[in-house]
Amino acid sequence: MKNSNSPETCNKLANFFQALSDPIRLDIVACLLEVKERRIKTDCYAISKSTLSHHIKILKDVGLIKVKKEGVTHIYYLDREEINQQYPGILDLLTLKLVTQENQPYV
Amino acid sequence: MKNSNSPETCNKLANFFQALSDPIRLDIVACLLEVKERRIKTDCYAISKSTLSHHIKILKDVGLIKVKKEGVTHIYYLDREEINQQYPGILDLLTLKLVTQENQPYV
Repeated sequence: MKNSNSPETCNKLANFFQALSDPIRLDIVACLLEVKERRIKTDCYAISKSTLSHHIKILKDVGLIKVKKEGVTHIYYLDREEINQQYPGILDLLTLKLVTQENQPYV
Repeated sequence: MKNSNSPETCNKLANFFQALSDPIRLDIVACLLEVKERRIKTDCYAISKSTLSHHIKILKDVGLIKVKKEGVTHIYYLDREEINQQYPGILDLLTLKLVTQENQPYV
């Protein structure tokens, strides 16, 4: 038994799920599901700035979040169109699991 | 910023994605997407039997695969109904990404 996928396909998908396999990274994505865009600050996480930067890098590397600069401020957002094209259904699943009814997702 | 989910929700979902964050575990799931049920053998993976058992345990622990015994043989399968209920859309995404057109998924 072995599936006929290329190792690249499996590795890329494994990396994508790896990015989602951490509660802080999931929380970052959840917050970005609720609003169009926002800053990401360490305030609510008991982690250092460099650890937060590491989490953000992992999410950026797999295409889950994108950044734009407004002056010296980094603003993060989900590129929903690209994510839906690359990983259909994942944003719906994450919204279902992570976004509470009181916090209607940004559409 | 911090999402209002309980830590339990985030941790459970993070564990689920962790189970999918390894190429061998993804391959096991891919093979079970193509057939109803099958044995899982080390033959095609350059890993030991104990390492394979470890991968299988991780997949079982998050509910991705189930096992039944036929004599002394362990037969593995996906409990599609339960997975679709718990994680809607994930099997469709995995099928899209991992199952080649030549290998029609088992329905």
